[in-house]
Amino acid sequence: MDMKPLLSHIELELQRQVSRLDQPRTKPFHEMLTYHMGWTGDGAGPEATGKRIRPLMVLLCSSACGASWQLALPAAAAIELVHNFSLVHDDIQDNSPKRRGRDTAWVKWGTPMAINVGDALFVISSQAIIDLKENYSAEVVVKAAEILHNTCLELTRGQFLDMSYEERTDLGAEDYWPMIAGKTAALISACCHLGALLGGADEEKQEVYRSFGHYLGLAFQVQDDILGIWGDEKVTGKSVASDLVEGKNSLPVLAGLDKKGKFAERWAKGPITPDEVGEISRLLASEGGLLVAQESAKQMTDLALRSLEEAEPGGEAGDALFGLAKKLLNRDQ
Amino acid sequence: MDMKPLLSHIELELQRQVSRLDQPRTKPFHEMLTYHMGWTGDGAGPEATGKRIRPLMVLLCSSACGASWQLALPAAAAIELVHNFSLVHDDIQDNSPKRRGRDTAWVKWGTPMAINVGDALFVISSQAIIDLKENYSAEVVVKAAEILHNTCLELTRGQFLDMSYEERTDLGAEDYWPMIAGKTAALISACCHLGALLGGADEEKQEVYRSFGHYLGLAFQVQDDILGIWGDEKVTGKSVASDLVEGKNSLPVLAGLDKKGKFAERWAKGPITPDEVGEISRLLASEGGLLVAQESAKQMTDLALRSLEEAEPGGEAGDALFGLAKKLLNRDQ
Repeated sequence: MDMKPLLSHIELELQRQVSRLDQPRTKPFHEMLTYHMGWTGDGAGPEATGKRIRPLMVLLCSSACGASWQLALPAAAAIELVHNFSLVHDDIQDNSPKRRGRDTAWVKWGTPMAINVGDALFVISSQAIIDLKENYSAEVVVKAAEILHNTCLELTRGQFLDMSYEERTDLGAEDYWPMIAGKTAALISACCHLGALLGGADEEKQEVYRSFGHYLGLAFQVQDDILGIWGDEKVTGKSVASDLVEGKNSLPVLAGLDKKGKFAERWAKGPITPDEVGEISRLLASEGGLLVAQESAKQMTDLALRSLEEAEPGGEAGDALFGLAKKLLNRDQ
Repeated sequence: MDMKPLLSHIELELQRQVSRLDQPRTKPFHEMLTYHMGWTGDGAGPEATGKRIRPLMVLLCSSACGASWQLALPAAAAIELVHNFSLVHDDIQDNSPKRRGRDTAWVKWGTPMAINVGDALFVISSQAIIDLKENYSAEVVVKAAEILHNTCLELTRGQFLDMSYEERTDLGAEDYWPMIAGKTAALISACCHLGALLGGADEEKQEVYRSFGHYLGLAFQVQDDILGIWGDEKVTGKSVASDLVEGKNSLPVLAGLDKKGKFAERWAKGPITPDEVGEISRLLASEGGLLVAQESAKQMTDLALRSLEEAEPGGEAGDALFGLAKKLLNRDQ
């Protein structure tokens, strides 16, 4: 299945949604959003927009359930807007100066404006989901909005856990899953749930799609954690082991802490320096952090693919979903 | 009409909505919200919660259209949650350390956590509006959600204008209304619009209620601007003329700038010091800033009351609405 028409319609729908701010007195505000979305300003273009995996999943799930993917475009846009709202606020919260190689919103316009940019993306996501009313019954729109908002609450819970973990020294692997369920899996799960709903699937089938997204999100995050420590820098494009230097509470690290061995001892002493990265990543692997993460990734991947098989996604979109899932899960970048 | 049952039900509904975060791992997060809402922590109590004017207006408008106010409680909570989301983010954006005499969220938990507290209040407001589905058709829920989200976009536009004005030196009275329409009037307008919708009013009648709220919001803000410069400190409870010291782009100030007289000359030179306040407020009054604001307040008040008369609000709630509007508009605090 050719993804290009889907991707170009996603981009058009996103632009249409964001254009709500393109009004006489708020054009500079509109430009802040179009910059963040990757359409305007320095470095604008495909590299800056990201891959739009989430909205693509909405459309593919909807199509795999037998509906025309065009009908689900407002929901695809809503999901991507939520994702981008969370990126803008995340960048402030993490004090990150760069996103996809470009200055972040708070660097360009200051924290107060950037908070408002995130808020606007968030509002527009809610407006986008209501736009489904053009193609769906009010009952379906209410259900879709409910899925979206419940997901957003999970996002704020995951964000709270992530931030509160920064001050804690008693963490272990069991603290990982609730954080990642909120921060990563909830939104991907919502993509599949919304897609199935809008594709006309019954509640049971929707639940299977939702599970697929949930496990796919978990598997994806664990993979990302492994690559963040042991990935090949030339392939991932990010500095290897930067996760260790940044002190990220990833699954390998939390599993390593559970062992209460030499890694845990070193981790408790404060930030890992870039010089130590090779040594500490080998230490963490030797104490089982890598193995735990690899086994979890395999387990979540199996659960995701089993759910997808159970969902029996149809047509070209179904094939594309299997392809996308396998690509995401066996990815080396 | 006795407001106490309405106010206590509003509080219960707000608590029920916010309790969505009262879950094992996010109890401290839940407590951040209950602190901000005025229910827990230092200084908790009626002084800390605010007057809940906005949710009260939702219930009164609904009841004045002939429906039971109980049915509209989720919408009343949604509006108050949006208001409180905007306060939490405002306090960060304005660097305000105190709100109703208590430490603001960012002072207590830092900016990253406070951003997330605001985000959660925002999400819960959207969840609250969907709860209307218990009592209303899906069509009405979709319409109510649309009103809420459109209002929130106006809030972000008003906030953008407010912040962008801080750097501008070419402002006049004409820049005032779009900012205030977004920052103050949009939400009060939404209270009345939602109330009428949920009260079963037809579209024409809803529009009249919406206008009432719009003009009431504008009149209220202009009054607030006047009191912020020429109010009696003993009555208002805030330092008189603090608006001048804070450099607030209020209507009297913007009207004063239009005159391009001595006030405008002084304003351009930088912050007004507390010592100068008496002199500068007299200068501003002598150059017409007070009169312009008083005339605008009167005009907006007349438009608000005329809209309310046209709406023909019924029963005790109708009388209460007239009473509330007159109290808000002739208030000396």
